[in-house]
Amino acid sequence: MLSRLLQPEIKSLIDTRDLSTLKEVLSDWTPADIAELISDLPEYEQAVIFRLLPRDLAADVFEYIDFDMQISLLKGLGKEEAASILNEMSPDDRTALLEDLPGSAARQMITLLSPEERKIAVTLLGYPEDSVGRLMTPDYIALKPEWTMSEVLNHIRQYGKDSETLNIIYVVDDKGKLIDDLKIRDIILASPDKKVIDIMDENFVALHVTDDQESAVQTFKKYDRVALPVIDARDLLIGIVTVDDVFDVAEEEATEDIHKLAAVEALEEPYSTMPFFSMIKKRVVWLTVLFVGEMLTASAMGFFEDEIAKAVVLALFVPLIISSGGNSGSQAATLVIRAIALGEITLKDWWHIMRREILSGLMLGLILGTIGFLRISLWGSFSNIYGEHWVLIGLTVGFSLIGVVLWGTLSGSMLPFILKKLGLDPATSSAPFVATLVDVTGLVIYFTFAILFLSGTLL
Amino acid sequence: MLSRLLQPEIKSLIDTRDLSTLKEVLSDWTPADIAELISDLPEYEQAVIFRLLPRDLAADVFEYIDFDMQISLLKGLGKEEAASILNEMSPDDRTALLEDLPGSAARQMITLLSPEERKIAVTLLGYPEDSVGRLMTPDYIALKPEWTMSEVLNHIRQYGKDSETLNIIYVVDDKGKLIDDLKIRDIILASPDKKVIDIMDENFVALHVTDDQESAVQTFKKYDRVALPVIDARDLLIGIVTVDDVFDVAEEEATEDIHKLAAVEALEEPYSTMPFFSMIKKRVVWLTVLFVGEMLTASAMGFFEDEIAKAVVLALFVPLIISSGGNSGSQAATLVIRAIALGEITLKDWWHIMRREILSGLMLGLILGTIGFLRISLWGSFSNIYGEHWVLIGLTVGFSLIGVVLWGTLSGSMLPFILKKLGLDPATSSAPFVATLVDVTGLVIYFTFAILFLSGTLL
Repeated sequence: MLSRLLQPEIKSLIDTRDLSTLKEVLSDWTPADIAELISDLPEYEQAVIFRLLPRDLAADVFEYIDFDMQISLLKGLGKEEAASILNEMSPDDRTALLEDLPGSAARQMITLLSPEERKIAVTLLGYPEDSVGRLMTPDYIALKPEWTMSEVLNHIRQYGKDSETLNIIYVVDDKGKLIDDLKIRDIILASPDKKVIDIMDENFVALHVTDDQESAVQTFKKYDRVALPVIDARDLLIGIVTVDDVFDVAEEEATEDIHKLAAVEALEEPYSTMPFFSMIKKRVVWLTVLFVGEMLTASAMGFFEDEIAKAVVLALFVPLIISSGGNSGSQAATLVIRAIALGEITLKDWWHIMRREILSGLMLGLILGTIGFLRISLWGSFSNIYGEHWVLIGLTVGFSLIGVVLWGTLSGSMLPFILKKLGLDPATSSAPFVATLVDVTGLVIYFTFAILFLSGTLL
Repeated sequence: MLSRLLQPEIKSLIDTRDLSTLKEVLSDWTPADIAELISDLPEYEQAVIFRLLPRDLAADVFEYIDFDMQISLLKGLGKEEAASILNEMSPDDRTALLEDLPGSAARQMITLLSPEERKIAVTLLGYPEDSVGRLMTPDYIALKPEWTMSEVLNHIRQYGKDSETLNIIYVVDDKGKLIDDLKIRDIILASPDKKVIDIMDENFVALHVTDDQESAVQTFKKYDRVALPVIDARDLLIGIVTVDDVFDVAEEEATEDIHKLAAVEALEEPYSTMPFFSMIKKRVVWLTVLFVGEMLTASAMGFFEDEIAKAVVLALFVPLIISSGGNSGSQAATLVIRAIALGEITLKDWWHIMRREILSGLMLGLILGTIGFLRISLWGSFSNIYGEHWVLIGLTVGFSLIGVVLWGTLSGSMLPFILKKLGLDPATSSAPFVATLVDVTGLVIYFTFAILFLSGTLL
């Protein structure tokens, strides 16, 4: 907001190269606002502004800049400046940058780090992709149970400057094993002569370093924490994860699911900045798979070519029938996929969901089938477009709709369970995927009812 | 996790009515875990366990319980117990409960509150639905600029117990106007004789009480905060919003968008616990609207009935053509809708997106068109199913695919902008909605190409 309002003024300061005033103005801004300002500037001016910032503010600002721009900015800075930024960055944000770089570029950046920071970076990158380890920062405060509150406050004053958060502080035993977490509130509220052990409740929640990031999202949500400690297989405290990073993970996951539901591969980059051909690649694969699958409809239709030739009127309702199956299937699939993603339902619920969705499918099919029958009856009785057998055509369409909607709802709701059971992502059963599946079977259902109702009259 | 592992033991403690052991066991658990245990119990046992909890823990646990269960639990408790819970709850969670209740039940609960808490509850409920005010809690700490650090710490010790968060503390002037925020870290790290004004930077971010909750999500994301202050029109500090509540808002919004994308109205309740008929209602409206819209395909097909009668082979490719348009439209619509929701693109980008999506549509159409042409050529040259004019049929299908995919991509990407411009939710342009739109026009495109290529031969 702020940066946009002042943009013209900032622009004139840059144009007139009034860098000292600019430096002064920016010193009052938050890192996030400076990052937004820099992101809105043309590339050749970004480094100019960035160089004005004091060293520690520069690293803060850098963490708020988008990945693409981080790379171009690093290239625009000198080796020494880049090294300073990388060394000052918080380890979790640095991991996020390094893991997205091509291997050679990442290695080059790691050589710029101080021996100490290099060790941290290499350790964090050693954890599996999408694991909690990759979100972790080793900047936390750990206390010993026997310390008094005034010792604790002294310790915090001495070592707290670099800690990512002071909201929650951890207690470890002599071996480094996590034994409790304390809110800073409890430390401040306790009288100074109390010991850590006196206010401990040994009641804490921790993440395991190899846990999936998705499970970290669930844990944060369940316990409403702003930070959680991370322990290794021996229960040793090795880092913390903060809520802002988990927020980003949750949002990325939702975006990925939304894209998959529309049969787009997970983009991994913002839509707006993604290069044209990468974007085409993410879309064309599924589009082609669906297209090839949908070719089966031509074969199915070919199978009933004689019926269509005899009663062309049947062809008129093909789009209506198959799209109703597709729409009801999309609804069911999406509801089930999102409920699985939110942890509302699990694999063992499939039987319960199936019974419910069969009832839903019947109900919805009856409603659409009735509307379809009435529409054909109305047109059929007041005009001659459907010929003399309009009642039979109406019945064919009506019953087909019940069958197709029931089948769409059933397959849409069960496919995510099947995929999950096979160890695949349920969101792969995208709306278009379900629709394609239902199209082929929908045609068979429709023409079967047609033969049933129209044999001897139209067929 | 914990609660599930111990479930059998807990169960036997409940069955044998060994309530004192149970009380002891639960005293070691976190509120979130106790809430999970209670949620997993049959309804008649929930109140039994809940009554065992000390008063302040009970209120904490209650905040972690789902809305539906909160209601049934309140009914199961006596009036006095219910009043105690409601009075102890944090005001933001209480607002969330009250706003979801029917008016009469909410009023009844408000009468159970103490005069002080009642005033808070009524004020918070006075803010518009979906506004920041509804997420707010008035439990925060505010400092004066002239206080010293030791005065600050004394103030926190005295008033900090009820504060929702101590991570960030606010500074107000004599009139109550917000003038800065301080991290608890800066207060602890400063020497005790420093004054608040010495460590202030007058650099803070605040939410406005009438802001949309969605904008609060964006602000939290941008600034990576765990809490943000809320000010009114006169810049007076009136409350704070914490990240956990914003996390929930973000997740609900993603769920709502996902459901809308599949043409389901926003559920407002979990899929798993939603009553059958409410669920049908959420699905049938859009399904019927789409069905009625899709009826136009029967009219469009009817318009070309003579062509179909002359060349039945044309009917075979109808599902393939229209579903390709629908699928490419779903992809484009979903990508644009999510990018708008994430703030990556705004209304003013429509022109840029349109050019890009026209190119994408052409490219994707060319790929599918080529595959379609090759498929028909292959079958046509090795068999007789498409007759002697299979090249012309192949060209008809190929060019139609280019046209339909281009048109699907274009309308899918532009519809969200149009809806947004009209002040509607872009997510309303669901995948099925776009598909239905494209189906009708797709048929016209297909039969137009057919007449163009096949006049004089098949037609």
